[in-house]
Amino acid sequence: MAADPIQRVIHALSRLPSVGEKSAARMAFFLLNQDPAVTRELADALGALHAAVRLCGECANLSAQDPCPLCAQPRRDPRLICVVEDISSLMAIERTGVFEGRYHVLHGLLSPLDGVGPEQLRVSELLARLSRLLSAEGDWGDHGAARAGARVEVIVALPSSVNGNATSLYLQQLLRPLGVALSRIASGVPVGATLQYADQVSLAEALSARRPL
Amino acid sequence: MAADPIQRVIHALSRLPSVGEKSAARMAFFLLNQDPAVTRELADALGALHAAVRLCGECANLSAQDPCPLCAQPRRDPRLICVVEDISSLMAIERTGVFEGRYHVLHGLLSPLDGVGPEQLRVSELLARLSRLLSAEGDWGDHGAARAGARVEVIVALPSSVNGNATSLYLQQLLRPLGVALSRIASGVPVGATLQYADQVSLAEALSARRPL
Repeated sequence: MAADPIQRVIHALSRLPSVGEKSAARMAFFLLNQDPAVTRELADALGALHAAVRLCGECANLSAQDPCPLCAQPRRDPRLICVVEDISSLMAIERTGVFEGRYHVLHGLLSPLDGVGPEQLRVSELLARLSRLLSAEGDWGDHGAARAGARVEVIVALPSSVNGNATSLYLQQLLRPLGVALSRIASGVPVGATLQYADQVSLAEALSARRPL
Repeated sequence: MAADPIQRVIHALSRLPSVGEKSAARMAFFLLNQDPAVTRELADALGALHAAVRLCGECANLSAQDPCPLCAQPRRDPRLICVVEDISSLMAIERTGVFEGRYHVLHGLLSPLDGVGPEQLRVSELLARLSRLLSAEGDWGDHGAARAGARVEVIVALPSSVNGNATSLYLQQLLRPLGVALSRIASGVPVGATLQYADQVSLAEALSARRPL
C-alpha cells in the first residue's frame, strides 16, 4: 500500500482489467478534478459490492437477491435453460430481448491447462437443477405428446473457442443421458458483415453450418 | 443511484474517462471474481483520495503534503521552474529523469471558448512565486556575472496545440517584463520515428526549428 494517496488510488485502479498505469493516473486526476461526491459514490458502491451481492441458488447469477430477478420472473419458461460462461454473456443475451427462458451461469469454461475442471464450474448445480425439473415433470404425470411439448431444453451458449468447445462437448456427454433436448447457439458470419472482411474461421463455420432455404 | 449493487458499481465506474458501460461491467465482474480485499482496497483508496490530497502552496502539485515532495527536495534548483498543464505532464517529465528544477502546475490551459481565462488557472500563484524569487535574489545582492549565472528561468512545457500556444503566448507577454529567462520545450519529429510516418505538422515544425550541426 503506497503512502501517497494518489499513488495508492493509481495502484488500486491499475489492477482493473485493461487499465494500465497511465490510464489509472488519468482516472485518478479526473476524479481529483471532479466534485468529491463522484469519488465518494464510486467508493461507496465498491464498498457495498461484495457485501450486497448474492449468488442465485437457482441459476448462479449474481444480484442483490436470491433467487435473482431473472429467476423470480414467473413468465420466463423454467424448462428452457441457457448455459452461459459468465454474467457478461448473460447480459449480452438479455440485451437481444428475444430469450424467454432462464439462465445457468457456469462462471468459467473448462481449461485443463489452467487447472479449471468441472468442479470449479457450476456444473453440479446444473445437474441438480435439471434433476429437480425432470422429477417434477414425472410428478405432474406428463406423457406422450404433452410431455414432448413441455420437454426440458438446454441451450449451450458458450463461445466458439477451444475452451468453449471443450466445455460444450463435456456438457453434451454429461447431459445426453438425462434425455433433455440439447442445442448450441450457431456461429458464423456476423449479421450485416460483408464476407470480404469476415475472418476465415467464422466463414468456414458459416459454410459448414449452412441451412437449407 | 441504482438499487442493484452491481449496476450501481457499473454506473459509478462508467463515469471514469474512457470507461464505457461494457468496460465498467467487465471491471465489476472482475472484482466480483477476485478476493473481496481487492475491491476493499480500491474503495478505501478512493475514499481517502480527496480528504488526504493537498494542493502544494508553492507549485500547485497535488500530494499528501504541502509543500509537495518535489518542492521539499533541497537539491532541486528553485530558480528553474517548469510550467506544466497538469500533473500528468509533470509525471511524464519526471519519468525522463533529466529535469532538476521545480514545477508549476497551471491545472489547465487558456480556452476562451470554454470560458477558461487566466483566473481559472494557477497564473497569479506563478506571478507571486516569481516575485518572491526575484526579490530574494535582490536581497542576496547578486550582481553582474554572479547574478546572470543564478538567473530565474521559466520553461514553458505546454502542448503544441491551439490552447497550448495561446497559453504560452499569454505567459510570454506576462512574464517578459519580469526579466526572467523564458523558453519553451521543442516540438518536432518524435525521436526514433521515421519521417515517412511523422505527421505533417510535426515535420513542418521540425524543419522550421532546425538547429545548426
